[in-house]
Amino acid sequence: MSIQIGVVLGGCGVFDGSEIHEAVSILIAIDQNGAKAVCMAPDIAQTSVINHLTHQPDPAQQRNVLLESARIARGNIQSIARVRADQIDALVFPGGYGAVKNLCSFADKGTDCTVDPQVQRLVEQVHAAGKPIGLACIAPIIAARVLGAIGAQPRLTIGTDAQIAAAIKTMGGQHQPTDPTGLCIDERNKLVTTPCYMNDVGPYTVFQGAAAMIRAVIQLAENPGKTSANKR
Amino acid sequence: MSIQIGVVLGGCGVFDGSEIHEAVSILIAIDQNGAKAVCMAPDIAQTSVINHLTHQPDPAQQRNVLLESARIARGNIQSIARVRADQIDALVFPGGYGAVKNLCSFADKGTDCTVDPQVQRLVEQVHAAGKPIGLACIAPIIAARVLGAIGAQPRLTIGTDAQIAAAIKTMGGQHQPTDPTGLCIDERNKLVTTPCYMNDVGPYTVFQGAAAMIRAVIQLAENPGKTSANKR
Repeated sequence: MSIQIGVVLGGCGVFDGSEIHEAVSILIAIDQNGAKAVCMAPDIAQTSVINHLTHQPDPAQQRNVLLESARIARGNIQSIARVRADQIDALVFPGGYGAVKNLCSFADKGTDCTVDPQVQRLVEQVHAAGKPIGLACIAPIIAARVLGAIGAQPRLTIGTDAQIAAAIKTMGGQHQPTDPTGLCIDERNKLVTTPCYMNDVGPYTVFQGAAAMIRAVIQLAENPGKTSANKR
Repeated sequence: MSIQIGVVLGGCGVFDGSEIHEAVSILIAIDQNGAKAVCMAPDIAQTSVINHLTHQPDPAQQRNVLLESARIARGNIQSIARVRADQIDALVFPGGYGAVKNLCSFADKGTDCTVDPQVQRLVEQVHAAGKPIGLACIAPIIAARVLGAIGAQPRLTIGTDAQIAAAIKTMGGQHQPTDPTGLCIDERNKLVTTPCYMNDVGPYTVFQGAAAMIRAVIQLAENPGKTSANKR
């Protein structure tokens, strides 16, 4: 039985959904390592629909996070409400504004944000089960909010953005600056984070960071008792 | 000056637009090889909007091919009508139903299909300039239609699908069966094709095929006089 990695999507497109290059890099790396992706998304309305050419909101449109995420997953996706922690060996999140507009409300509310109830539930359950969680780009905000609130003091990276790093600390997390393809591995909480498009980089750099994150997540999933995971 | 590779997108999502894993694999491979992607798409209405969870059409929705393609390109995209052959060193197409619903009408009209006028113009101009064209998955249909019609007898692969192979022949092309990550290289016409999701494969297999296609396209672009390109 191959390792089952839950992939939580938040729409389809960097400005109102999951960042597509990060999400696909994660799916490629999961397949490359012989693991299986279990794609999921909340079955909720998107906070907004952004015209990706003009970067302006299109208030006339309404889209559903699960249906748009299904584009990235080629239809192989389910509502996150149906997924239990005992069905997966690890959980990973690509970034994109969807992570902070649809999966949580950080883009609007900052450090007062709330997390989608089903996303919060699954993160809490996977963490409580001692299974690893990987988060790319801006998605570590979700772990800061959920695990910071329960006193887990999650150690995370979003690269070097001082304002977001300060927000992570305010929500009860710790921030570790990292280079564009570097990882922050919190062995105690089994968290793996990497900046991806938090930096002005190209898609191959994003792929390298996402692939390193997936390798570290698989290593933690395969060695539940191990505490000295490879830092890179 | 790095090699400039035009990437023609046809929407965002396998069932009504560009296949996202193929498109992103192409963008990763272009960056990995030190080349530059020049993303473009027709500024036209999508033929349909398909619910990617149910696979059913959503006739209430209308989307624009350029705006949806901009999601894959992170906003770095222009109308194909503005692109001239002398601005790029090569042209590549991912697959997905968008290639045969939006870029040409093969999904509806079969071998009587027409190609979007701007796509047809650019393919003809790039071919006439002796610059390479790469096409993945079902996209070789576009080259069969455009270059078959001018008697170029393009040699192409879509893997092993007998019905699509027959359609390529009917439109004036030749078909070469290929394994999932294999290439068909037509050196005379400077065409590189690979099946990607024409087979029931995973995203890493798709990435390997797309990356091999991009390497061969770059080799042809860098060696315009060379006629013995590496077959793999």
